[in-house]
Amino acid sequence: MYIEKIDSPADVKILSVEQMEILAGEIRQALLHKLSEHGGHIGPNLGMVEATIALHYVFSSPHDKIVYDVSHQSYTHKILTGRKGAFLNAADYDKVSGYTNPQESEHDFFTIGHTSTSVSLACGLVKARDLKGGNENIIAVIGDGSLSGGEAYEGLSNAGENGTNMIIVVNDNEMSIAENHGGLYQNLRLLRETEGKASCNFFRSLGLDYLYVKDGNDIASLITAFSSVKDTPRPVVVHIHTLKGKGYLPAETHKEQWHWGMPFDLKTGNPKYDFSGEEDYSELTGEFLLEEMKKDRSIVAITSGTPSVMGFNPDRRMQAGKQFVDVGIAEEHAVALASGIAAGGGKPVYGVYSSFIQRSYDQLSQDLCINNNLATIVVFMGTIAGMNDETHLGFFDIPLICNIPNMVYLAPTCKEEYFAMLKWSIHQHEHPVAIRVPGASVVSGNLDFDTDYSDLNRYKLVQKGEKVAILGLGAFYGLGESVAKLLKEECGVEATLINPRYITGLDVEMLEELKRSHSLVVTLEDGELDGGFGEKIARFYGSSDVKVLNYGVRKEFADRYITEELLKANRLTDVQIVEDIRKYW
Amino acid sequence: MYIEKIDSPADVKILSVEQMEILAGEIRQALLHKLSEHGGHIGPNLGMVEATIALHYVFSSPHDKIVYDVSHQSYTHKILTGRKGAFLNAADYDKVSGYTNPQESEHDFFTIGHTSTSVSLACGLVKARDLKGGNENIIAVIGDGSLSGGEAYEGLSNAGENGTNMIIVVNDNEMSIAENHGGLYQNLRLLRETEGKASCNFFRSLGLDYLYVKDGNDIASLITAFSSVKDTPRPVVVHIHTLKGKGYLPAETHKEQWHWGMPFDLKTGNPKYDFSGEEDYSELTGEFLLEEMKKDRSIVAITSGTPSVMGFNPDRRMQAGKQFVDVGIAEEHAVALASGIAAGGGKPVYGVYSSFIQRSYDQLSQDLCINNNLATIVVFMGTIAGMNDETHLGFFDIPLICNIPNMVYLAPTCKEEYFAMLKWSIHQHEHPVAIRVPGASVVSGNLDFDTDYSDLNRYKLVQKGEKVAILGLGAFYGLGESVAKLLKEECGVEATLINPRYITGLDVEMLEELKRSHSLVVTLEDGELDGGFGEKIARFYGSSDVKVLNYGVRKEFADRYITEELLKANRLTDVQIVEDIRKYW
Repeated sequence: MYIEKIDSPADVKILSVEQMEILAGEIRQALLHKLSEHGGHIGPNLGMVEATIALHYVFSSPHDKIVYDVSHQSYTHKILTGRKGAFLNAADYDKVSGYTNPQESEHDFFTIGHTSTSVSLACGLVKARDLKGGNENIIAVIGDGSLSGGEAYEGLSNAGENGTNMIIVVNDNEMSIAENHGGLYQNLRLLRETEGKASCNFFRSLGLDYLYVKDGNDIASLITAFSSVKDTPRPVVVHIHTLKGKGYLPAETHKEQWHWGMPFDLKTGNPKYDFSGEEDYSELTGEFLLEEMKKDRSIVAITSGTPSVMGFNPDRRMQAGKQFVDVGIAEEHAVALASGIAAGGGKPVYGVYSSFIQRSYDQLSQDLCINNNLATIVVFMGTIAGMNDETHLGFFDIPLICNIPNMVYLAPTCKEEYFAMLKWSIHQHEHPVAIRVPGASVVSGNLDFDTDYSDLNRYKLVQKGEKVAILGLGAFYGLGESVAKLLKEECGVEATLINPRYITGLDVEMLEELKRSHSLVVTLEDGELDGGFGEKIARFYGSSDVKVLNYGVRKEFADRYITEELLKANRLTDVQIVEDIRKYW
Repeated sequence: MYIEKIDSPADVKILSVEQMEILAGEIRQALLHKLSEHGGHIGPNLGMVEATIALHYVFSSPHDKIVYDVSHQSYTHKILTGRKGAFLNAADYDKVSGYTNPQESEHDFFTIGHTSTSVSLACGLVKARDLKGGNENIIAVIGDGSLSGGEAYEGLSNAGENGTNMIIVVNDNEMSIAENHGGLYQNLRLLRETEGKASCNFFRSLGLDYLYVKDGNDIASLITAFSSVKDTPRPVVVHIHTLKGKGYLPAETHKEQWHWGMPFDLKTGNPKYDFSGEEDYSELTGEFLLEEMKKDRSIVAITSGTPSVMGFNPDRRMQAGKQFVDVGIAEEHAVALASGIAAGGGKPVYGVYSSFIQRSYDQLSQDLCINNNLATIVVFMGTIAGMNDETHLGFFDIPLICNIPNMVYLAPTCKEEYFAMLKWSIHQHEHPVAIRVPGASVVSGNLDFDTDYSDLNRYKLVQKGEKVAILGLGAFYGLGESVAKLLKEECGVEATLINPRYITGLDVEMLEELKRSHSLVVTLEDGELDGGFGEKIARFYGSSDVKVLNYGVRKEFADRYITEELLKANRLTDVQIVEDIRKYW
């Protein structure tokens, strides 16, 4: 076993190529073992084992600096840089994050979880080095999928002008999360087919030198290539052709499905836990949209590299045909495209994770909302109960979206209301609309919901009470119900319960009316407090005698938290809230 | 005179090439005449006269749809599409906006003022057409400078995959606002030098067909080129080489200076109004930074295509050498680059307009703030008193930036405080910092300012009074002073006056202390109310007896407003505010 002797990259440097090949096998087994028990990014990591070993053999980290794009291919890097315990010992599995993290190791330079950033960040390291007169190699590792993002292009073009040492390893496994989309990928194919010899070369056109490695899982070839560019005085792309999921047949065969996964049986590849009986917003959305699309050929579903988010598995994509567009990991383009489709009379629906809609603020504002075009944005996982890595939080979409003029941001409380709103939005003729899918798990409501939401900013009074009014926004409407129930039980107070529905505006009439018989208004939102919904209510009542308590999460990059703990820390349980309310009798 | 007979593109179609050449001369004279009296975008419009005539000769707008990137080259388009009056009659000059606008004409498809969006938006029109089975040509017109933005790349790559009719006219005048930056521009030069024959071709690498027009100011060549691609079944780039500023020697000679300008004397090119005696934040910033950079070689000033924003005229750029980076119009990369420079031990300062920092929310959050890197972002024109086109508003940066964790967003009240904060920020070792330059015109303060801002969220109590406390944020501190003065005069109340300084946090101690002898807290901010600073104060006092009044602008895309009128409409004059306050005695 070589893996047990690897405590730092220095231990890689003394190995022969043959020994490194054995090490690669051991690492692959360790990855598969951990991933089958723990879940995580599978395909991207299996494909990058050899290249990571070769990088650490040729270069001297941390003097030479390696920056991994999106960093979900950095597990082997972690194993080789003193963190193998977190892959070999079940008890230590959670001691490392799923992404690079400078808090963990001097071999990591950035906390990275969003795509297409590595080249830009590495350009910064290059600039700092050049000013200080350093001589270290700066290396950015970026996948072919990540090349579809505008930030990657901006970085490549800047690198091409810089003109000093920089090595950009393009890990081309012919896949994004799903298949790649964009004209660029025709060029990558041409480069693979000509073994890098085609004269029309995207990278060279940006002023970069270029080198092709046919077998990006062959350690000897990789070492030769990396050695030849080490200490290069020019920015150079090393384009390596790797196999996503290499070494595990299910992952090699079904690349999209095995990009990321929950724990699975190593022998069969079957998932260990069966979620098939559980409803899922993505599945429901895909089903709903496909039906609507069949009835109305002007509906276009758009994804930015994550089709499964909106339930468009390969079969639904095929059925949708031209009515489905995957733009690659290009959230800016996705929003502008939606606006353009709407301007042309189509009905676009863009489905996107809360964490990634962040990448298109200016497009929401300029391309979409100034033009007041009729696009629908469906925001998934905008919730505390969703992804819990600091780079993938679902806290920030409310402050991001709800302060943009003209936008109508809706907060359904359950699946029935969500689909009622989605249906209305697709077919209405007045506003750009965003809809915040309520929470991570499907909630079913038992109330009647409206079919028309065109009378903006009308909150729904669900229960009329007195003294205390509770505004339970979106997924936190359920929390509002619990609080109301507890208030009744503990204090005999029949609180007023409201489903605000509209994040982007105030129901001034209802809020005014509340003043007559309420002394306290409580707002509950499943996201960041700062810049959010509750603060608008606080502003409204600021000059009145009505007191306001706002509940949501405080402004912070919470990392790998336990949902229940974060809720408690922010006093977001019904018991805590009732405790607070009682102080204001 | 032909120009007087042009009421729609149909009137262009009946002209001969010779007549169109005369028309081009007339249009150029009209443009120069209006611009010399009115100001506006000069160079970009002068260069696009012939190409616009040729486009309207060959294509049939509005059936065929032309989308202009950033649209500051769309004046000739406006003249040819029924809006010539706004260029010929002084009384009508302001009847059109400086950008395309569907409210003005059926020949405009989007309101556009930010860069790099045209191809994406046009892709949407393509998609809508293809679903409906239409046969119109979709044309995007994009400048070489705009190609540096990531959104343009995302759009081009998507267009390359689309595979149906789309014509992308690349108006290559060899300039951005200033000179171009990025590896891409080496390829454009190569394409110009080889008259489009070089086999390494950026556009072809993205899957696009390609055609080169050597003289992009020659109507006959342009007509030939456009005719050859009309009704093409494939996406194609028509790369035309034009002369920025064509026909006016000062503009041809000094391209950067003549990109946009205030009224000028047509004969001499000298500006009509002399602002040379007035201080200017950009000039002061350039001067200050250059001095600091000479003392500390690790300081790097960064611009995204607008070096003059931070006072880096060509002379200062030369002096700064490697310590100045223009990344092209690539705001995302600018922020990530700054984060990378900081991670490498450098001291980056990125200067950017409020309206354009919107393009980098995700980079501020992910690349910079999660990593807590020590970059300084200087936000210019974040004020109601700045640019007043709906696409260039300075209202939104506070909600955008101040709700991002880890960020320290500072609001100096005058130039002395601004430079004290800037100096501190560059040399501190704890936080990513953004600084909001106070207002559009330089204000000088007469107070002593701190040199150290590391004790976060300490507001400055400038005047201790009672009953009413006024929090005058940044440029609105002066308004706070006026309100306090008027309160004293009219009501004999000595109000408390506070300079909050920190937009991103609350001085809980001071705010608590205010409760003892104040019943009303008034917040004043020079930006959008929703999601801003004041709402956080309202939230803080929501559960107390202290009343809060928040002042700022309401959420809307105000367009070509008169500052004084907008202030009044939002009750932002001292008289109005005092009137409001008196209701709460």
